[in-house]
Amino acid sequence: MLRLNHLAIVVEDIQQALVFWQDALGLPLGKVERNAEEEVEIAFLPLESGEIELLAPTNSTSGVAKYLAKRGAGLHHVCLEVPDLAAAMQRLRDHGIELINDTPKVNAEGVRYCFIHPKSAFGVLVELYELPRSS
Amino acid sequence: MLRLNHLAIVVEDIQQALVFWQDALGLPLGKVERNAEEEVEIAFLPLESGEIELLAPTNSTSGVAKYLAKRGAGLHHVCLEVPDLAAAMQRLRDHGIELINDTPKVNAEGVRYCFIHPKSAFGVLVELYELPRSS
Repeated sequence: MLRLNHLAIVVEDIQQALVFWQDALGLPLGKVERNAEEEVEIAFLPLESGEIELLAPTNSTSGVAKYLAKRGAGLHHVCLEVPDLAAAMQRLRDHGIELINDTPKVNAEGVRYCFIHPKSAFGVLVELYELPRSS
Repeated sequence: MLRLNHLAIVVEDIQQALVFWQDALGLPLGKVERNAEEEVEIAFLPLESGEIELLAPTNSTSGVAKYLAKRGAGLHHVCLEVPDLAAAMQRLRDHGIELINDTPKVNAEGVRYCFIHPKSAFGVLVELYELPRSS
């Protein structure tokens, strides 16, 4: 079985959204950080397994900013952990599934990841993570 | 910390969607069942903790059918488990959060649940579950 790594939610303003998620609903706040590459501010709200990530664009031109302008705030993507990203990507391609990036990307924490195109996933933006072996 | 119970995804057709989620991505299929009250067919895809639920309307008049017609297939709602639903609902009301049902509902499995209105949750439909004590 796969593990949920995170469920990402787009918001206009992190602090406003935390009034609901943290103060009213009672989720703990892990940290808030800026991600320069994705041009977003991210608040991490850990769940018992996995976490909720609130994403707010830091400019008006990023992918997340355009999504927010077009679709409004709400659920954005789901990220699942796989043991072998290259194998998972090959299996998806073998089934005719379109990937947004054809080769794995690697983030600052050494996580290898890719996105599956929503049109191949019935409207859902799905991200896959392969965590570094040392973690 | 709260536990993710399920992430619900609206699809037009369960069998078509399973070609992606089960065959291509490799998630195990728990069961598929009809829920007469919600007028949907549901496929349960267990994760390491919690599960993904694919919902397909069984008629054109249900809430899920209207959602599908208006917004298209995609992420629908997130359900978190709370230890005490009445206390959680009171805390939400104390923070001015609008609930869709003012008193807990109870499903066939004895789960007490409520929905938080998306306009109070920055565009996200959030469901809360209180599991029966015996489970």
